[in-house]
Amino acid sequence: MAARIARSAAATGPATGARTTTGEIVAWLAERRRAHGTRIRRIPFAELDGWSFQEGTGNLVHRSGRFFTVEGMRVHDADRPGAPWEQPVMRQPEVGVLGLLAKEFDGVLHFLAQAKMEPGNRGMLQLSPTVQATRSNYQRVHGGSGVRFLEFFTEPGRARPLTDTLQSEHGEWFLHKSNRNVVVETADEVAEDPAAEPDFRWLTLGQIGELLRLDNVVNMDTRTVLACLPTTAEPRPSRHTDAEVSSWLGAARSRSRLTAEPVRLARVRGWLRDERAIRRTDDRHFRVVAVAVEADGREVGSWTQPLFEPCGPGVSAFLFRHFDGVPHLLAHARAEAGLPQTVEVGPTVCHTPDGHGHHPAYADVVRAADGARVRYAAVHSEEGGRFLYAESRCLFVSLDGVDDSALLTPPPDHLWITPGQLGALTRRGHQVTVQARTLLAVLNSGAARL
Amino acid sequence: MAARIARSAAATGPATGARTTTGEIVAWLAERRRAHGTRIRRIPFAELDGWSFQEGTGNLVHRSGRFFTVEGMRVHDADRPGAPWEQPVMRQPEVGVLGLLAKEFDGVLHFLAQAKMEPGNRGMLQLSPTVQATRSNYQRVHGGSGVRFLEFFTEPGRARPLTDTLQSEHGEWFLHKSNRNVVVETADEVAEDPAAEPDFRWLTLGQIGELLRLDNVVNMDTRTVLACLPTTAEPRPSRHTDAEVSSWLGAARSRSRLTAEPVRLARVRGWLRDERAIRRTDDRHFRVVAVAVEADGREVGSWTQPLFEPCGPGVSAFLFRHFDGVPHLLAHARAEAGLPQTVEVGPTVCHTPDGHGHHPAYADVVRAADGARVRYAAVHSEEGGRFLYAESRCLFVSLDGVDDSALLTPPPDHLWITPGQLGALTRRGHQVTVQARTLLAVLNSGAARL
Repeated sequence: MAARIARSAAATGPATGARTTTGEIVAWLAERRRAHGTRIRRIPFAELDGWSFQEGTGNLVHRSGRFFTVEGMRVHDADRPGAPWEQPVMRQPEVGVLGLLAKEFDGVLHFLAQAKMEPGNRGMLQLSPTVQATRSNYQRVHGGSGVRFLEFFTEPGRARPLTDTLQSEHGEWFLHKSNRNVVVETADEVAEDPAAEPDFRWLTLGQIGELLRLDNVVNMDTRTVLACLPTTAEPRPSRHTDAEVSSWLGAARSRSRLTAEPVRLARVRGWLRDERAIRRTDDRHFRVVAVAVEADGREVGSWTQPLFEPCGPGVSAFLFRHFDGVPHLLAHARAEAGLPQTVEVGPTVCHTPDGHGHHPAYADVVRAADGARVRYAAVHSEEGGRFLYAESRCLFVSLDGVDDSALLTPPPDHLWITPGQLGALTRRGHQVTVQARTLLAVLNSGAARL
Repeated sequence: MAARIARSAAATGPATGARTTTGEIVAWLAERRRAHGTRIRRIPFAELDGWSFQEGTGNLVHRSGRFFTVEGMRVHDADRPGAPWEQPVMRQPEVGVLGLLAKEFDGVLHFLAQAKMEPGNRGMLQLSPTVQATRSNYQRVHGGSGVRFLEFFTEPGRARPLTDTLQSEHGEWFLHKSNRNVVVETADEVAEDPAAEPDFRWLTLGQIGELLRLDNVVNMDTRTVLACLPTTAEPRPSRHTDAEVSSWLGAARSRSRLTAEPVRLARVRGWLRDERAIRRTDDRHFRVVAVAVEADGREVGSWTQPLFEPCGPGVSAFLFRHFDGVPHLLAHARAEAGLPQTVEVGPTVCHTPDGHGHHPAYADVVRAADGARVRYAAVHSEEGGRFLYAESRCLFVSLDGVDDSALLTPPPDHLWITPGQLGALTRRGHQVTVQARTLLAVLNSGAARL
């Protein structure tokens, strides 16, 4: 399987086995963007249709009781200045399905991508997995039209599973959210006529890799699913055994004193609600806002919903370095209040620089890196169904040739691990943050080589 | 590593490489039981020292704010009759350490076991891991005397990790409890003089396996750690690929509509509190009670605490069968409200028969099994620091030779998997229930062979 995935990653056009050129895919996305003709508009909370602030709790809920809710969270951490603090948080107890359908054409594995509109994405339409659905979606709480190709992911035996794990999402914004990340392979004739399925195209992994070099084209759900692909590289000498990596993460988990508990949104201290936003009194971190969406291509034609809007762009970067010829990533055991196991493996640096406040380790090294050290840089969006313009600059920054021992000898929360070890952790489920999974997808798809 | 573990499992006495006979270990446990001279006594809640029902919430809490709390939980499940329901639940947000220290003697891996008193265990004293500690323990909230050998599990680089994962505990009694299960190997001279460390002994895996054939000797924490050992058997033909097993579990997780939310203990519907117990109005399932413990060997000499007391003994059984000569276990994708990912892989049957109420699939097959089909049966206790006389009869029951296709073709929540696949799932962390891990420890230690 690893060999088949490597072959798909090497296929970037018809000459190497892809069904189309990547240029055609870019043109198709532009065409679909025009065809969908979607617009969003910021609205006051009072204009939300079906959403309201629940009496008593002040939580922002949908009248169906489904989708997600915006509630409050109190975070305790005896080791962190500023704790305890309170903040709004999204809760979505349903486990959604992020599913990518695979099929071999002429000996090369292709993946069925969807041109999908999400209100919070810059440019609205991005490349999404075949299926991206919560139970609310596919049980039609929206009154929508069902979810194409869902049966491949929900009917046992319908297709051959290649990977299937639960993965966390943003632990600073969600309380215990978890999605099923699935790739299944079919031998059926599916979606082979572009005219019949205008929103779907078969792409190789290498083509998705080419698109990952562009800003804001491949959506978060696609990236996290690609990170789970079974790309077992041959064993290469690593600085630490797999058991040592697992132990480092376990030790960080038992050290952590971070805990979170739900509180009522109405009572969240340090935040204000006006007609159009819930925001911190100092206007930092993020706001809760509302939008109206007019679109043709989604499950229903138009709707309104709340979104979280970060107050600035993020930075998400792995420092890397070769040891004995083997590339290693500087991984971070990162505590986030909303992660089900509190600590997961994140990139070396993952933060929103805002000129004041918390200044994480290695942030300066990433910021100061000159062009020659930057092996990869692109801006990607977080889930556009929940976040408005939540963009991060994603980087791989080389430390090859650097001999600063203070830099190379990491503090206890950082460890040098290989990309293969990061992949193996990811395939265990709930071990690797969504930001680190984006960067792993960049490697898996060949968008960057270290 | 798998070969070294197999060698340790094959060592059951001095002739095969163990340092002592298992008989000596049994005698040592009896001697320690006498030496500790522990007694427990049921007391009314009013006699609890340091514990009280919090004003407003009615939650049962310790004045330090540490250890655990007894709160309420409301459980929703659109697919289950009787839901929603409410019940008391234990919360313990700290990640504890269950650590087993390993060391090679004359080429055979031994494990440092502790004779440890826990108030809720029948017979009080059982064989426990080297370290069994919450942060409250080792930061001495008890005012206790520190935790022996803890440094091997908390200081990076102090010993060589063999396995290190987070594992769930009883999802019907705990809300999101998670413990770190660790085995590390040392080359140091440690605890080699029994006189200096009277509560510790070095045992082979095979000796622990012999003790697992006895009732109530090997405690739950030891069993769950042993289940995590990297016993990778050679690949053998299984009915389903690993990806299919993972996909079956993922599908069950996205099907499940079980959710839980904390509520105040004072408001839990359907339960009564009197001077000595919190119990259901129909007296089923379990009670919350209080005990006083007088002991010499624990971190502090005597204390009082609440415990959960099940209303009857449980049954925890795997049906197994050979397919093409390879043993397979009938695994169950089991939903429990307090599990962090809601669904984990449990034994075929896991329930408390009480003559009425819910009657799970395959319970009749296990109950009706005659002696020849029962490959293993022993009674084991759940964690005696939290549960009073919580005992389950643990079984492996053979279906070899049975051709009843209704029996052999499982419903969607059951799947035939190999013990090796169950082990691999366990080593991912948070995929396998504590009851299934007990049965896996029975296999890993050679206490039963299928």
